[in-house]
Amino acid sequence: MVSAAIDRSMVEQIVRQVALEYLHRNQNGKSSVLTVQTSSRHMHVCREDMDVLFGPGSELTFDRPLFQEGNFAAKETVTIVGPRNRLISNLRILGPMRKQSQVELAFTDAIMLGIHDIPIRLSGDIAGTPGAILIGPKGVVELKQGVIRAAIHVHMNPAEAAHFNVSPGDRMKLRIGGPSGLTFNNVHVRIDPASRLNVHMDTDEANACGLHLTKEIELFK
Amino acid sequence: MVSAAIDRSMVEQIVRQVALEYLHRNQNGKSSVLTVQTSSRHMHVCREDMDVLFGPGSELTFDRPLFQEGNFAAKETVTIVGPRNRLISNLRILGPMRKQSQVELAFTDAIMLGIHDIPIRLSGDIAGTPGAILIGPKGVVELKQGVIRAAIHVHMNPAEAAHFNVSPGDRMKLRIGGPSGLTFNNVHVRIDPASRLNVHMDTDEANACGLHLTKEIELFK
Repeated sequence: MVSAAIDRSMVEQIVRQVALEYLHRNQNGKSSVLTVQTSSRHMHVCREDMDVLFGPGSELTFDRPLFQEGNFAAKETVTIVGPRNRLISNLRILGPMRKQSQVELAFTDAIMLGIHDIPIRLSGDIAGTPGAILIGPKGVVELKQGVIRAAIHVHMNPAEAAHFNVSPGDRMKLRIGGPSGLTFNNVHVRIDPASRLNVHMDTDEANACGLHLTKEIELFK
Repeated sequence: MVSAAIDRSMVEQIVRQVALEYLHRNQNGKSSVLTVQTSSRHMHVCREDMDVLFGPGSELTFDRPLFQEGNFAAKETVTIVGPRNRLISNLRILGPMRKQSQVELAFTDAIMLGIHDIPIRLSGDIAGTPGAILIGPKGVVELKQGVIRAAIHVHMNPAEAAHFNVSPGDRMKLRIGGPSGLTFNNVHVRIDPASRLNVHMDTDEANACGLHLTKEIELFK
């Protein structure tokens, strides 16, 4: 049994986003700052679902900016209900709105919800993934699909990709030092001219490697 | 907010212990079976604390055997209370009793309890670690120290150590394949004539690498 006293810490964890910055020396000897971030469970919402959950024509309310320009944590949250009526409240919505709704959970979250077969996908690739019930202040959405564990990935712009000598779809390695040191072997490369160099991992991955204790990080092909 | 509906899944997780077996080919070309296990949060109890928690002279009740011979999950559980009165119930006790009580949590558990600085230690090395309040059916123990995150480690006997060419205190690497593939770089080697070859990781580590999805595991120096 997990008591109500845990509620606040769970809420804190939802909005937690740890950013660690490391000076990264690339193959050409040039240095660039590598930022590694932990994404707690969250969702992206489409216009249609926003209308149902928060009312017709409602808009997301800016709460704080995220690292990638234009992205933000909204003040709005929903409750997500999984199989066998297990639920997590205060699932944060990240803006701006997208073409399709999507829920991103760590394995630990998914197990808590009773989803034991959550697929590992890149954002946007949701065909055939599990659904869930979403409850907002104005209505309920039955999400047919879109619940994923986001694959660990690195955002970068084309110049940074040239530095690392990687192309879209490549995998890189991310070595985390320290007492729980490990190397992520399948870091998906996402390249966009608007991106800033950073790695996104989820809370399971961050807790496994003790990201908050780490003083040493290395990204390599 | 995490509802009471989650309780059952949390209890299930407490007693979860996933064992995966892999045929491991060592340097000499001989094969041995490598078993990798996930340890959910649990505690070990000393005679003195057992007396307080479950009554003078009480004994642990065998529930099911663990992989290492002589070790077992007991039917007894306690409630652990962390800083700011956060708690987790149904913390499973593993037997047999030990000389000193010790609580082993994943980072996720520790954060839920409000312990944000849980040290990563080998079992038994608890000097200077945080304490907690333990509540049993017959009494309450104020554990002065002993709350740790167990460092990932591998048990083996001397013959297996000779195969791997490792000594006590060495670190090995454990590569997990699959979509969340990663390599643990600091797997502590523990050698004992009574041990059977197996790796112990915690639930954060198992969830980060998707251990239950893995078909490929490699232990190497």
